[in-house]
Amino acid sequence: LECSGNGRVFLEPPQVGIRWELGAVGTAEWKGVPLAAVLERAGVKPNAVEVILEGADKGEFKEPNPRTPGVIPYARSLPLAKAKAPEVLLAYEMNGEPLPPRHGHPVRAVVAGWYGMASVKWLKRIVVTDRTFDGYFQTFMYTTWDSRHGLPTIVPVTEIQVKAQVARPAPYEVVPKGEPYRIYGAAWAGGSDVAKVEVSTDGGQSWTVAKLIGEPVTYAWRFWEHEWRTPERAGPHVIMARATDSRGRVQPMERDHDRRDAVISHVLPIEIEVR
Amino acid sequence: LECSGNGRVFLEPPQVGIRWELGAVGTAEWKGVPLAAVLERAGVKPNAVEVILEGADKGEFKEPNPRTPGVIPYARSLPLAKAKAPEVLLAYEMNGEPLPPRHGHPVRAVVAGWYGMASVKWLKRIVVTDRTFDGYFQTFMYTTWDSRHGLPTIVPVTEIQVKAQVARPAPYEVVPKGEPYRIYGAAWAGGSDVAKVEVSTDGGQSWTVAKLIGEPVTYAWRFWEHEWRTPERAGPHVIMARATDSRGRVQPMERDHDRRDAVISHVLPIEIEVR
Repeated sequence: LECSGNGRVFLEPPQVGIRWELGAVGTAEWKGVPLAAVLERAGVKPNAVEVILEGADKGEFKEPNPRTPGVIPYARSLPLAKAKAPEVLLAYEMNGEPLPPRHGHPVRAVVAGWYGMASVKWLKRIVVTDRTFDGYFQTFMYTTWDSRHGLPTIVPVTEIQVKAQVARPAPYEVVPKGEPYRIYGAAWAGGSDVAKVEVSTDGGQSWTVAKLIGEPVTYAWRFWEHEWRTPERAGPHVIMARATDSRGRVQPMERDHDRRDAVISHVLPIEIEVR
Repeated sequence: LECSGNGRVFLEPPQVGIRWELGAVGTAEWKGVPLAAVLERAGVKPNAVEVILEGADKGEFKEPNPRTPGVIPYARSLPLAKAKAPEVLLAYEMNGEPLPPRHGHPVRAVVAGWYGMASVKWLKRIVVTDRTFDGYFQTFMYTTWDSRHGLPTIVPVTEIQVKAQVARPAPYEVVPKGEPYRIYGAAWAGGSDVAKVEVSTDGGQSWTVAKLIGEPVTYAWRFWEHEWRTPERAGPHVIMARATDSRGRVQPMERDHDRRDAVISHVLPIEIEVR
């Protein structure tokens, strides 16, 4: 699961919202019941279009605009097709243990392939609805701009984009000059597989293919590494990684501002110091 | 036509947006072609759901959040049923003259019965679409909160609510004590007729039925008057008017905060000074 705001601190101009650095992503093993099975048992009417997941989490935004209408619960909807997909779970175990409280005990959604905001924690209620749900967290928050007939229209954030992230070196890390150094990290691509990760140690001028570690597991991240010999000359350096997925999607170099404050998948520069 | 922000200056707490007092409403005689006739000639496919009206007006909101995605045109959509209704015109004359520039020359929409934001001026393009259009002016602006299954969801502002407005006395007007005084104003109710206007000269404690003037004209305002004898005792007074429409809808006394910064139809107090 990756938060759609992962990496927000890198955005220019600065955005409102939690100023995530690189840590708002992880991979766990989930166990649960497919939402599809519950919908099947409950019986879904032919005019249903969406499934709303409501969590016990609640709160109020007073500032900045737009405000919430008082205290509201956290809720997100899924189009019926995604709600019925096998990768959407009502999970009660994480890594072989009952869900810990902060991960959504006793039961949460895990909407694999989508950003984390869809995986509603502390599930309280599931509503099947015949109309589009335009709740606070899929209009004012967690939306991007799409173009329809040349006109911008907001769309809820959904699928995780292809992305490689550098775990080491960390931003502003000091590394010794003229020595072997293992650059490594993770890459993921929503419901696709990671086909390739490339690394640049010169701020994006040249790229080398990194080594992918282990076997691909759909919806999980995949580790990669690159053995680097650090430069003889001391000074600042910029490390980058970019991924390509099995559908040929390449991680973009530039930020797309239509993504507002979310879906931060462009290549992020990691500034380090060689000494 | 009434702006959905008419009376915004009266809202507590103060809202972002043009701080309209009472003047953002008017009635004119429009001449044009029904949008339905144009759609009929063009041919609308069976999967159409909305009609987007795009104006030549454009601009950018940088602050406050949420921003527009750069410079965007003003555009609003109508559900197909309203777009095909006979009261929706592509107007080219106002009060017997070609549209003046500031009223949308050479052609504008007049969406009778709906607040003014739907009546797009300086029409440039009409798009029939098979998906919901969630443009800036019907998500971030000009929306109210509706409740679906106990969860707030935003809905675009549409129908004009029943409302009586006091034209005279004006707010903070000084009126002489112990004399006849004609309180008057206008009332309107979207596509319904105004059935009754009541006036209070004691801050809402007691109400008297006002006299409706002329004949009802659907979608136009109707004037009303009330002959008042001003009090012998000098001091501040609060004048109010409230309307009831032919469907039995009564203008509410209290503001509904789910209406955000729009659809200001509750009874507004006009503070005056008797001297």
